This record gives sequence, structure tokens and C-alpha cells, in this order.
Amino acid sequence: MELIYLDNAATTPLSSKALADMTPYFISEFGNASSLHEKGRMAKRAVEASREIIANSIRARSNEIYFTSGGTESDNWAIRGVIKASKNNVKHIITSAIEHPAVLNTCKELEKEGVLVTYVYPDKNGLISVEDIKGAVNSNTILISIMFANNEIGTIQPIAEIGSFCREEGILFHTDAVQAMGTLDIDVNKMCIDLLSMSAHKFNGPKGIGVLYIKTGVKIDKFIVGGEQERGKRAGTLATPLIIGMASALEETLSNRESKNANMILLRDSFISDVQHNIPYVHLNGDKVKRLPNNINFSFEFIEGESLLLKLDLDGVAVSSGSACASGSLQSSHVIKAIGVSDELAHSTIRFSLGNNTTREQMNRALKILIKNVETLREMSPLYDSKKKEGKYV
Amino acid sequence: MELIYLDNAATTPLSSKALADMTPYFISEFGNASSLHEKGRMAKRAVEASREIIANSIRARSNEIYFTSGGTESDNWAIRGVIKASKNNVKHIITSAIEHPAVLNTCKELEKEGVLVTYVYPDKNGLISVEDIKGAVNSNTILISIMFANNEIGTIQPIAEIGSFCREEGILFHTDAVQAMGTLDIDVNKMCIDLLSMSAHKFNGPKGIGVLYIKTGVKIDKFIVGGEQERGKRAGTLATPLIIGMASALEETLSNRESKNANMILLRDSFISDVQHNIPYVHLNGDKVKRLPNNINFSFEFIEGESLLLKLDLDGVAVSSGSACASGSLQSSHVIKAIGVSDELAHSTIRFSLGNNTTREQMNRALKILIKNVETLREMSPLYDSKKKEGKYV
Repeated sequence: MELIYLDNAATTPLSSKALADMTPYFISEFGNASSLHEKGRMAKRAVEASREIIANSIRARSNEIYFTSGGTESDNWAIRGVIKASKNNVKHIITSAIEHPAVLNTCKELEKEGVLVTYVYPDKNGLISVEDIKGAVNSNTILISIMFANNEIGTIQPIAEIGSFCREEGILFHTDAVQAMGTLDIDVNKMCIDLLSMSAHKFNGPKGIGVLYIKTGVKIDKFIVGGEQERGKRAGTLATPLIIGMASALEETLSNRESKNANMILLRDSFISDVQHNIPYVHLNGDKVKRLPNNINFSFEFIEGESLLLKLDLDGVAVSSGSACASGSLQSSHVIKAIGVSDELAHSTIRFSLGNNTTREQMNRALKILIKNVETLREMSPLYDSKKKEGKYV
Repeated sequence: MELIYLDNAATTPLSSKALADMTPYFISEFGNASSLHEKGRMAKRAVEASREIIANSIRARSNEIYFTSGGTESDNWAIRGVIKASKNNVKHIITSAIEHPAVLNTCKELEKEGVLVTYVYPDKNGLISVEDIKGAVNSNTILISIMFANNEIGTIQPIAEIGSFCREEGILFHTDAVQAMGTLDIDVNKMCIDLLSMSAHKFNGPKGIGVLYIKTGVKIDKFIVGGEQERGKRAGTLATPLIIGMASALEETLSNRESKNANMILLRDSFISDVQHNIPYVHLNGDKVKRLPNNINFSFEFIEGESLLLKLDLDGVAVSSGSACASGSLQSSHVIKAIGVSDELAHSTIRFSLGNNTTREQMNRALKILIKNVETLREMSPLYDSKKKEGKYV
């Protein structure tokens, strides 16, 4: 049974081209990019070429790209670094209630240390309103951190508008673009982005490598200190093969981006419509239009999300309930709750996330397997059963 | 011309066995170890098997092993985490003046935040005295951080004695074992180690992955926050292939450790003796006996270390002046200066670090190339020339 992998928002397989590009740097060209000898300089050249590819992809300059261990570190660094570098007595951050835990938990830690944080709530489609952000600003606001697109429900935020407002007000603007990189068009200049987080393994790059873009001139403290790597701003031996793999995968992902997106949007929208026509009592979470090309998120009444996930898994369809990062906690998704879904319904949520290579045939098979398992689980639900008897449900 | 790589303390090539073990987890078994479906659980099982191998290597328990992005992050986390978790009003750390910058710069940052730090100085061989540490302790001492073995001069510290003193006093003990892992025998229980940092790429594992060992019960704050990975203590998607590569390389390195060490010690000591017999005005840095099997460190009078490094590089011998992490800064090594070497002589220092596969033939060729280049550079030195004319030097 061929696996239908619909959990590309959790992680993606490494591109075989990226692996081929990385391989020489594991064993043959293994030098430390900080070493002065040729073996080191060779690694450094490869790192710098990769840095340029990544910079170009968001219209940044090479010296604005800093390698980290991933999106989580980038988010931690961006927020903590800006707050630590600020000389204000009172420090205020605005973020949203549907950020990734890497942003939310950093803010919560900072609150314990005396920083003030406003969590702006989205509308029922997961959209953050620029007006709400404007309303939350005060004279102590140092930083606004709003994700480019949500990892659970796929809603794309009005980044350019938030950015241009921040620039006018002289407030720094950070965006967690971990889920957006690879599908959405990102221009840090036009969008007035000061800090941007990305993670390679979300766009078919290797796990363990990410980037924080820091606009020239932004005052930010170091987060990981030690050696003089990354122009003295982020210490630790550069993971050359991972950096090369990240750039290679990004280049590959961005080639023909438009047509790949068009294909995913087609598959996404047919699947959404098919589910809505074939399964009663389902609720699409997230905006229908301002949505990542690869994201589908449904709540299924009378279903426990994790049970459905495991059923689908047994039938060869890999999906997620909530996000992978939150698994291990039994709480229902903070994102689904923030858009006004009840706690009970939030527990019945499944995310399907497509990849560049997902086919219509796979989506059709996934649909059939989904319909079957939703029916099976609902048949086992005493609540569904009694509602049916009452005639309230079909 | 075959390269003679004598910079294994900076980084090592990835083991081909480790790469083979990692490879399936890049493309085929690429799941997110936090995902609940089979693809994720498969990754998790591989991570846990690797965690156990690493735990066993230092006689720790699996649940005391936390994956990080490398030695630098581990050092940052250990020190900052313990300080942040302490409820003391006055917080005091004892460390040494010859620690890796990841430890020293973390301590310097903490000093800015009001933490008190004592930097104990080593003797002329780079040895830290347990008595000096005892003398520095006061009622506010929370943490003692002393590296297992020095990365530049190879001196091995009396870790078991420091550990047992710390345990008696109820002071937490962290050791940066980045250079020691793979060659030295480490038993965190017998040595009373509470926190230990390691980095895979120093023992033929991949770059971008490390471990912080945290003894059960040690109070330590999180460093990178976000998702629930690593039992809620270190957020960020686990880099499964790197973790597998780390465990695989460690297992391989530790097999026949004794005989590999014996071979390296033989080569090391012949090289040291050959240099001392063939090159005048050289000074061995570090202890002759309490020394890493693979470390050789000399200062050559009338030589600028970086010039010698580049000359050797042109002749196919890769070495380091100071450490790779400090390159980019023009300052002479803080380690060499801390053992009482003059600033001028410190600038004339070269580290040769052997690998498991370094051969006698390579060392013999390296010796000849070294002798030739030292002579050439000294012939160009006006200072050496005038000293010769004075008859003071041969």
C-alpha cells in the first residue's frame, strides 16, 4: 500500500537533488567554514553561495541572512533579541493569538520577565485585522510579530499592510514565514519586513537548519553566543551540508512555483468541495481564499480527531490533528479555539497538507478513505447515534 | 597531492557508516518525530534508539539526553538555564579562563545581567587546580563550569575531583566535553557531572547536532521555547537524520577506542619529540601527559602562526592557529595567553590535531613540510636574522 502523505505542513521529504548537492560536503568537503585552510575556505564558499540564493529568494541582501538551527530558534532569537537590545524601560510586543508556539511561548516567557504583550485575536477565518493591530499600539510598542501564514489553518495574513504600518510608526516587524516559504511570494523590502524566520524542512530541505533574516540596521542582541561565526551574531560551527541542502531545496521549490501552486490549489479546492458534499456536519477552518495552496483543515462533528488520524494512518493516509509541534500535549489547538470553535469541535480537527508532488489520484483515494472512516467512527459514537434517533441528524 | 588533514579538533569528516545510516531518514523515512502517524512514529523510534546509544556512552539514562544544534547551544543552555532557574538573589559562577568561547561569552553576557563570575586561571600546562576552585567558592556559588579537555592545547582537567567536590558542596557541575567525547572515558555518575555538552561533528558525526546531558532533578530553565519536543524542554523539530548520524558515529568512534588512542598517542608523542629535536625555539603548549591523544600545540618563535598555517596549507597540510571558532578575530588565543605565554609568542602558535585514521606516514610527511616552512619563514624574519648575527640563535 503506497502511503498518501498529506502532512507536508509538519515536514517534507528531502529533495533528492538537495541530498545530491549536500552529499560531497559530508565526507569529502567536510571542512569547518571557519578554518583558514583551503578545506575550510571551500566550505565557506559553498556556504556563501547558499546564503546568496536564500537572500535572493526574499529579495534580501546576503549579509542579512543568518543561519540558525530552524524556525523555532529563529523565532526565539528575533523576539528575545529585539527586546533585549531595546533600551526602553517599558517594553511592549504585539502578536497574534494564533502564532506558532515558538513565538507564543517566547512572548509568555518575556511576560514573566516584565515585558508587556498584547495578543490580537483573528476573525472567524483566522484573519488578523490591521485595524486591531493599530488599536493595540502604544508608545512602548517595540515589536510586532505576525506570522505570514498560519501552520494549522493556512490563513494568509495582510503582511504588506502590517509591515508598512510598522515602518511608518518606527516599530520593528517580525514575521514567522516558516509555513509560507516555498509557496508564497515574499519580498522583505516591499513588505517592510525587518525580521523573518524560515525553516528548511518545510520546503523539502533538511531538518536542523533555518534562517533568520535581519534587516540591516535592526538592533538585535545575540541569542546563542560563543565563536565569531555569522559575523559575530550567531555562534556555533556552521552546518555546511544542511545550508547547501536548504538553498538547493529552496531553489528547486521556487522554480515553477506558480504552476505548482495552481495545481495544489486545484486539488485543495476540489477536496474541500468533495468533503463538504460527501460528509455531513463538517466545518472548514480558515479562509477559503486567503489560504496556503497546500492547506486543508476540517473539524468533523462527533469525531475525536486523534482517532480519525490513527484510522486514516492504518489505511495509509498520513495527516495531522492540530500541528505536530503540539502533539504530546492533550490540549486542543489554540488556533482552532482562537477562531471561535468550541473546545469539543476543536478536538475533532484534522489538517491535510499537500506537497508539490501530491496527485489527484492520491487526493481521490484519500477522500474515499476519509469518508469511510468518518462513517465508521460516527457509527461508534453514542452521541451521533442518539442524535440520529432524534431525527436531528441524517 | 593527498591532503594531510591535521585539524580534527576543528571538525572531522562524517563517517561513511554514519552517512549510510542517516540516508534512509532523509527521503524515505523523513517523518516528523512528533507526528502521530506511522511515518512520525518510525522517526521517533529511530531517535529514541539513538538517544539510548548516546546515553550509554556516558553512562547516563536516555531521559537525561537532550538534543541541541551543537556544542555551542548546549553550553549556552546549560549555563543560562541553570542561572535562570535559580531563585538566589546573588548568583555566582566559577569557570576557567581557558573555556571555549561558548562558555566564556555566556558568562560575560550573564555578568552584564548582574551575575558574578570567577575565572580561575590554569597553571603553565593549562591545568586547573581543584584547590583554586575550592578557594573561589562562596555561599552564592550556583554553578561550576570546567571543560573536560581543552580544545586548543588538549589539557585534560581533573573532572572527577571537581565533580565530587561540587556534589559535596551542593553546587551544580557542568562540563563542556566537546573535545573529549570520542577519545576519553566519561562516566557522568562516577564523575558527578550534572550537565555535559557534546557536539557530533567532533567525532565524525554530522554538523548541526549536539547534546546536553541534564542529570535527573537538575533545575534548569528552557533555552529555546516553542513546541513540546524533548519532553517540553527543548523546542524545535527533531533533526532525525542528524541524530541517527550522531549515534552511529559515536558508536563507531568508541569501538576499539583504547587501541585508536594508543596509536594516536604514539604518533602524537613521536611528532612532538621530532619537532623538538629538529626545530629550534619551539615551545610545546599544554601538559605532556594529561593531554588529549590527538592534540599537538606548538609556538614557534619568529613565526607568525597564520603565515605558517597558509604555507602548510599550500603544501597540503591542514592545521589551525588557535581554534577555528576564534578565526575572524585578530586577537591571539586567550588559552595560550592564560598559560602565561607572551602575546607575541601566542601569535606564533599552531595546533595539529590527529584523527582516528591519521597514519605515521602522514605525520612523517607533515614533519618534513613543517621543518621546511618554519626555516623559510624564519629566513624572511628580520628579527630572526639579527638575533642570528648576534650569535644568540643558531
